[in-house]
Amino acid sequence: MRLLVVGGVAAGLSAAARARRLDPSLEIVVLEAGPLISYGACGLPFFVEGRVREARQLIHYTPEYFQGERNITVRVNTRVKSIAHSRREVVLENGGRERYDRLVVATGARPFTSLPGADRKNVFTMHTVDDAVRLKTFLEQHKPTRAMIVGAGYIGLECADTLRRHGLQVAVYDLATDVLHRDDPTLTGTVKAHLERHHVELHLNAPVRAIENDPCDVVILAAGIKPNVELLAETGVEIGRTGAIRTDDRMQTNVNGIYAAGDCAEAQHLVTNRPAWIPLGTTANKMGRIAGANAAGARERFPGIVGTSIVGLFGLGVATTGLSVAQGHREGFQPVSALIEARSRPAYFDGRPTTVELVADRESRRLLGGTVLSEHDAAGRINVVATALHNQMKVDEFELLDLAYAPPFTPVWDPLLIAAQQLMKELA
Amino acid sequence: MRLLVVGGVAAGLSAAARARRLDPSLEIVVLEAGPLISYGACGLPFFVEGRVREARQLIHYTPEYFQGERNITVRVNTRVKSIAHSRREVVLENGGRERYDRLVVATGARPFTSLPGADRKNVFTMHTVDDAVRLKTFLEQHKPTRAMIVGAGYIGLECADTLRRHGLQVAVYDLATDVLHRDDPTLTGTVKAHLERHHVELHLNAPVRAIENDPCDVVILAAGIKPNVELLAETGVEIGRTGAIRTDDRMQTNVNGIYAAGDCAEAQHLVTNRPAWIPLGTTANKMGRIAGANAAGARERFPGIVGTSIVGLFGLGVATTGLSVAQGHREGFQPVSALIEARSRPAYFDGRPTTVELVADRESRRLLGGTVLSEHDAAGRINVVATALHNQMKVDEFELLDLAYAPPFTPVWDPLLIAAQQLMKELA
Repeated sequence: MRLLVVGGVAAGLSAAARARRLDPSLEIVVLEAGPLISYGACGLPFFVEGRVREARQLIHYTPEYFQGERNITVRVNTRVKSIAHSRREVVLENGGRERYDRLVVATGARPFTSLPGADRKNVFTMHTVDDAVRLKTFLEQHKPTRAMIVGAGYIGLECADTLRRHGLQVAVYDLATDVLHRDDPTLTGTVKAHLERHHVELHLNAPVRAIENDPCDVVILAAGIKPNVELLAETGVEIGRTGAIRTDDRMQTNVNGIYAAGDCAEAQHLVTNRPAWIPLGTTANKMGRIAGANAAGARERFPGIVGTSIVGLFGLGVATTGLSVAQGHREGFQPVSALIEARSRPAYFDGRPTTVELVADRESRRLLGGTVLSEHDAAGRINVVATALHNQMKVDEFELLDLAYAPPFTPVWDPLLIAAQQLMKELA
Repeated sequence: MRLLVVGGVAAGLSAAARARRLDPSLEIVVLEAGPLISYGACGLPFFVEGRVREARQLIHYTPEYFQGERNITVRVNTRVKSIAHSRREVVLENGGRERYDRLVVATGARPFTSLPGADRKNVFTMHTVDDAVRLKTFLEQHKPTRAMIVGAGYIGLECADTLRRHGLQVAVYDLATDVLHRDDPTLTGTVKAHLERHHVELHLNAPVRAIENDPCDVVILAAGIKPNVELLAETGVEIGRTGAIRTDDRMQTNVNGIYAAGDCAEAQHLVTNRPAWIPLGTTANKMGRIAGANAAGARERFPGIVGTSIVGLFGLGVATTGLSVAQGHREGFQPVSALIEARSRPAYFDGRPTTVELVADRESRRLLGGTVLSEHDAAGRINVVATALHNQMKVDEFELLDLAYAPPFTPVWDPLLIAAQQLMKELA
C-alpha cells in the first residue's frame, strides 16, 4: 500500500506523519515542489523584522528527519504536473511518474501576482522562505525608505508592521472596503485608526492596477492567494464555489482514494454550515492529520472550522471568529451585535483597553461571531468565543460561563461576559 | 413590593442592582453587617503587597451611589440576627426589624478562626478590607521577618507571595495533602516546587493545632471559610451537604420567596451534576444577578459552575477547572489524563513553559477537567477548557477546536490541542 502526498509544508507533512503513526507498514512518499519542507510560513514577517535571526529557525523538520525518524520519503524540488487517477499515478514536471494507492493533495495556495509590474525587482510576495530572504536582503542592501503594500489582509498588515519597524514609510492599498477579509466596518475603522497612530497609511476601496515607476522603493504584493488545484484538472475531483477543493468530513474528495487538505481545500464552516475556504496554518495541520488518518485506513472526522484568526499590529491583538454582522446578514441570519470596551485586567495590574464585539442571531439567540481587540489576552478571549461557536452556544448560556478570575489575570466581570450582558439587552 | 437583600458585597449588590433594572418600582433595601459594601475581596492581597495604594481603591460603590443612582437603600453596620419568615420579617441585632416580600440571602462566608491562639495580635485573617488594613499596618509598624500561613488554599498561597515580596521568610502549613483544595498530587508537586524556588516552605499533611509563642512574627489564618447560614435556622431553608444553602437553578431555596446567592449558597456543578460549594467572587456575582432577576419576577436560570479558578504565584498562573483525576474517581467516572509541557508562544516571541493537563472519562470520552500552569495566558487557556466543560465536549471534538494562531500569541499547535492529542492516545 503506497500513500503519496503532494505538498510538504503544513497539511502534507501532518498527513504523512499521522498516516505513519497509524500504519507502520505503509509506504509513504511526499513530493514537494519547492526546495524546503515543513516551514512556518506565518513566521516569515518576523524573520524580515529581524526577530527570527536565521531563516532556518523557521524550518521545523528536514527530509532527512522524515526519512530517518519516520520512515517517510520526502522529495523536494519535485513538482507534480498532473494526476492520472485511472492509472493511480502522478506525472512529474521532470517527466517522472509516481504510483499511489491513496493520494493526499496538499498543494497549498499561491499568491496573486498577475499585476503589470509585478515582476520588477523591488516587488516581493511573502509566501515562501525564499520570498522572505529576498525581501530582507533587499532591505539591507537598498535601504528603501518608502513601501507600498498591496493588500490589507493578514499578510499585508503584518508586513506593514514589519516595515515600519525597519523605519520605512508605509502605505497599504486594498480594493476592498474592509480590512482582513472581514466585511466589518467597525473593525476596519478601529484597525485604520490604530495603523494611522503608527504612521501607516491605509487606503481602502483603492484598487492597484499596475506597479509602475512610482515614488515607493519597495512593494509587497499581498493581494490574496489562490488554491493550487490545476493539477487535478483531469481527475474529476470537484472544485467548490470558493475555488478550492471540495472535501467531505473525512477530507476525501468526490474521487475515491484522493484526499485534500490545507490551503488548497475547503472545510465546513460550523456557523454557516456551508463549505468555506479560509486558508490558515492551524487549519491546514488539522485537516492534514485527518486526511492522513483516513488515507491510512482509519475513520476520523474533521467537523470543520469557525473562522478564527488573530494578527498582531504594533502590539495590538486583532482577533476575530465566526461571522461579522454583514457576513451574518448574507448568510440569512438576523444578526444583532453588541460592542463594549472594558479593561483586560484591573487597573492595578496594568489592565489595557479591550474591545469585544459579539454577534448573535436574533431569533435563535445563537452566537454567530465575535471580535476581540486588545494588547492583552486577545487570543485567549477569542478562543473562548470560538469554543462557544463550535458548540452552538446561545448568548444566554455564554453570559454565564464560569471563567477564571483573579486580579493579576482578569477583571471580576470578564470583558467577554460584559459584552454578552450587553448583547442580552440588545436582544431583549 | 419590597425586596430585602442580606449582604452588601458581591452577590447581594448584584442581586439588588439587577432587580432594580428589571423593576423600577420595587422597593429595595440591602442590609450589610460590616462597615463597607461592594469591595473586591480578591484584591486584598494586592493592597497588602502595596500594588493597590489605597484601600478605597478596592471599593467599587458606596451606599450613597446606590441610593442616588439606583434608588437602592443600603444600610451598613446592620447585622441580621434571624429571619421570621412566617411574618416576612428579619430581626436585626440592634433590635430593629425589616419587612420583606422577597428575600435574597447573600451573607457570604467567614474565615475559620476557632484555633487556640487565633486571638493573638499578630494573627490575621484576609477576608475584609479591615483585615487587610490591619495586616498592612502591622507589617509597617512591626517589620516582622518570619511569617506562618495556616492554609494552602488560594488566599494562603496569595498571602505567601505577598509576604515574600515584603521580604519575610514564609512557611505555609495545611492539614490536607494537596494544595488549592484540588486533590491533585501532580498539581501539588508542581506548586510546591515552584513555591520552594521562591523560598516559601510548604508543609502539607501538617495540621496546626494551636498558635503559641513560636518563632514566627506574623500568622495568617487562611484555613478555609464557612458559609454564614446560621440566621436561617428558623426558616426551614434547607442546608445542603456542603454546609451551604441549597438552591434551585433560579437561586431560590426550598422556601418560597427566599433566594440565596454567593458564598453562602451552593450551585450545581455541571461536570458532576451535583450541588457544589465553590465560593468565588465571579460566581457570587452571577448567582446574585440571577437571584435578583427572579426575586424581581423574571424567570432566569443559573445553569451552574464548572469550578474554574486561577491564582498567580510569583508570576506563574495556576489555573484549574472541572475535576482532577482523583476527584473524577470519587464522582464515579473513569478518569484518564494526559499532561504535556509546551511553549506558550514560539521561542522568538518569548514563549514560556506551559503545562497543560486534561482529564477525560474513559467511556464517554467527555472532558472532566483541566489544569494550565504558565507565566503566559493561563487564564485564556483554562477558559477554553471551562467553555468545553460547559458544553460537555468530548476530547475528540476538543482536539479539533479552531483556535487562533499567529506567532506573537500562540504556537501553531496550541498547548491545549497538544494535550488533547496526547489524551486521545491515552484513550486509544
